[in-house]
Amino acid sequence: MPTSQLGFELDSRLERDSVPLMWLGLCEMRLMNDRRWPWLVLVPQRVGAVEIHDLTPLDQTMLTFETNTVSKALKELTQCQKINIGALGNVVSQLHVHIVARHDRDAAWPGPVWGHGHREPYEPASIHKFIDSVRSKLAHQD
Amino acid sequence: MPTSQLGFELDSRLERDSVPLMWLGLCEMRLMNDRRWPWLVLVPQRVGAVEIHDLTPLDQTMLTFETNTVSKALKELTQCQKINIGALGNVVSQLHVHIVARHDRDAAWPGPVWGHGHREPYEPASIHKFIDSVRSKLAHQD
Repeated sequence: MPTSQLGFELDSRLERDSVPLMWLGLCEMRLMNDRRWPWLVLVPQRVGAVEIHDLTPLDQTMLTFETNTVSKALKELTQCQKINIGALGNVVSQLHVHIVARHDRDAAWPGPVWGHGHREPYEPASIHKFIDSVRSKLAHQD
Repeated sequence: MPTSQLGFELDSRLERDSVPLMWLGLCEMRLMNDRRWPWLVLVPQRVGAVEIHDLTPLDQTMLTFETNTVSKALKELTQCQKINIGALGNVVSQLHVHIVARHDRDAAWPGPVWGHGHREPYEPASIHKFIDSVRSKLAHQD
């Protein structure tokens, strides 16, 4: 499927459940507003993309680079046990990639985070602090 | 983390729960022996790899190519509604990527498949038929 950046609009559910964090080359990076897990979401700015294989080969490579850069930074920042990466889209079909830091005593361990219980929004001060720490980590990434 | 192919051994749980299907350039592709979903698993043949970001940039690109080729083939073969791609590793830390065909009336829809209920093994005739159809589809992939 040919995809384009013109006229891209963020899905309303992604907009409601997450907050903007940073623009990358292909994706907008957002933070899921759920304090149960450090949980980032990358949204490629491509109209109509649903599956990763819908993207052009160049965009696929960009998405891989951005996903892995963020994954490495999030692991170092949180000192988590495992990063979970997922592109599901069963509820929100607009292509988005989840990058979640998991600890072995977190709310859903060792199960997946998707669909687990109810979202617990951050306090405003905490979300700003976490956003700043992610931005700072990415600015100093190898 | 430097990774190498020498001395690679498949995790015993992956070996128990899935069957070999095909060798790709970087990964062994296996079929999860669970008839509830058409569910493939790619295992990069790299000793010690846990996170995708542990791989070299070239291996990351290979993994992206192999994942997306298989994803496209599985979607066309099953005519599914959505492909779910996940790299979790909370239970089995050896790096592996799940590629699952989801239908909107399947056993876990719209939730994730991981940790849902109990695995239901295929009948031998059905698993061979499905394996043949995946091999044939990939042999004729664009």
